[in-house]
Amino acid sequence: MSITVVGSIGLDTVETPSGKNEEGLGGAAVYFSIAASVLAEVNLVAIVGDDFPEEHVALLESKDINLDGLERAQGKTFRWAGKYHDDVNERDTLDTQLNVFETFHPKLPEAAQSAPYLFLGNIHPALQLEVLDQAKPQFIGLDTMNLWIDITLDDLKAVLKRVDCLIINDGEAKQLTGQLNLRDAAKAIQAMGPSIVVIKKGEHGCMLFGSGGEIFSIPALPLEEVKDPTGAGDSFAGGFMGYIATKGENDFDTLKQAVVYGSAMASFTCEAFGPDALVTVNKEKLVERYSAFRKLTAF
Amino acid sequence: MSITVVGSIGLDTVETPSGKNEEGLGGAAVYFSIAASVLAEVNLVAIVGDDFPEEHVALLESKDINLDGLERAQGKTFRWAGKYHDDVNERDTLDTQLNVFETFHPKLPEAAQSAPYLFLGNIHPALQLEVLDQAKPQFIGLDTMNLWIDITLDDLKAVLKRVDCLIINDGEAKQLTGQLNLRDAAKAIQAMGPSIVVIKKGEHGCMLFGSGGEIFSIPALPLEEVKDPTGAGDSFAGGFMGYIATKGENDFDTLKQAVVYGSAMASFTCEAFGPDALVTVNKEKLVERYSAFRKLTAF
Repeated sequence: MSITVVGSIGLDTVETPSGKNEEGLGGAAVYFSIAASVLAEVNLVAIVGDDFPEEHVALLESKDINLDGLERAQGKTFRWAGKYHDDVNERDTLDTQLNVFETFHPKLPEAAQSAPYLFLGNIHPALQLEVLDQAKPQFIGLDTMNLWIDITLDDLKAVLKRVDCLIINDGEAKQLTGQLNLRDAAKAIQAMGPSIVVIKKGEHGCMLFGSGGEIFSIPALPLEEVKDPTGAGDSFAGGFMGYIATKGENDFDTLKQAVVYGSAMASFTCEAFGPDALVTVNKEKLVERYSAFRKLTAF
Repeated sequence: MSITVVGSIGLDTVETPSGKNEEGLGGAAVYFSIAASVLAEVNLVAIVGDDFPEEHVALLESKDINLDGLERAQGKTFRWAGKYHDDVNERDTLDTQLNVFETFHPKLPEAAQSAPYLFLGNIHPALQLEVLDQAKPQFIGLDTMNLWIDITLDDLKAVLKRVDCLIINDGEAKQLTGQLNLRDAAKAIQAMGPSIVVIKKGEHGCMLFGSGGEIFSIPALPLEEVKDPTGAGDSFAGGFMGYIATKGENDFDTLKQAVVYGSAMASFTCEAFGPDALVTVNKEKLVERYSAFRKLTAF
């Protein structure tokens, strides 16, 4: 079944201990779409400026991503710049230019409205509410960030009431709930709305909390080199939602598998700058990576 | 088969967000011995002062731990005091009094010398070398800490050349090797001597690196409440070495199982102050906890 994703597309300038990538293709919706497209049909809803390179559009089209919801506005595309520390789990944001994103109001074409799966990428919660008012999905996933927890918590809480699953970082889960224990944080989030909570812990893997109190925990794949972790979380979400959409179910066993596929996607993304490694993933490579996770964790 | 452990016994004053424990039974050798005793015969080599409460001796005896190597010296027992932050992964050491430990030179009785398994708890590497000169084990595990990496690296490197397995924290592994990637850190440690490396990551679980390049990774059990993590790492080592000693083998499958048993022991220790929860563990509770790890991680 198909997924609609609404989120950012940007041109990222990223510096890591492995090198630098100037104005490369980035944005949560890009990573999500490419990852999800390996498993399911994807409708992308986002905005770019008139400076957005055609080659990036062609790349997304080559992945059979439906771009009917891609708005091209006059002005510059969203830009982000960041620098990772020697410990690539830490990064500083050097620059954020919203540009055409500043006045963006997502408009979902017919196919995007009727898709049974919806993922609300990390954008202003007020925009996420606008999306919810246009769509009638059977399953909704949500991402957010510390900024929205800080400045627009009421809107975020209104969104949380209407979604099935929140995918969030450990730091943000603690910030949102005031709970330092991730079990307690997940419970507190579930009380806000989503029955399913995924807490991402970067290099330490992630945890899944089910509606019946079930917990699943998986480490990250220890990579030889993390070249650029930008987009790893969005790739995770794409693999996670993509797998659920292919199954058409969300029982806990399906969700566990989805977490493994999500983790596999994230691991690919870290192996190269931008989506350079992620775009090479096909079903065969994904299954190989899934096996690597099993080998890493089975006892 | 039996294990000899050489390490500290102390009286710990610990404050955590859950409460305070004044001058309770502590020390690496205590946690290690109690955990290992669930699975194997243990010879304890350590020193206490004449103020060491008899009830603690009785407790260790009740676990069938061989105390022939427990030296009782004139003076005060080793003391440590620490305070954990609201985030119990962080702690400050408030006080360390070596007392009788200051002039300690381990003397291994006959049974301790001939035990096929030896664990060198976290003491001065020069003392660890003295132990190695007295024993003829077939398998040697080692613990150390940031202090020894800082002030007596040469002695530590001499010890590393003579052991089979190093069990170390992630922060210490990075410090010892200068490598931020844990795969690289493990490789660098293996080049220093031990063919097997276990890197503990606290609430994030731990990683096992085998002599053939194999990697196993397991998350920690998400506990409802971490009352006091003191001794969790030593309990891990006790469960790990205890399991290997019962099997009499150290192929990678055995080592993986040992990591799970170690993780189970560590999880018990965190559930109460000092060794209060650990002392209640028997084989039945251990197998239950093992199953909890399988349920948490299997997909």
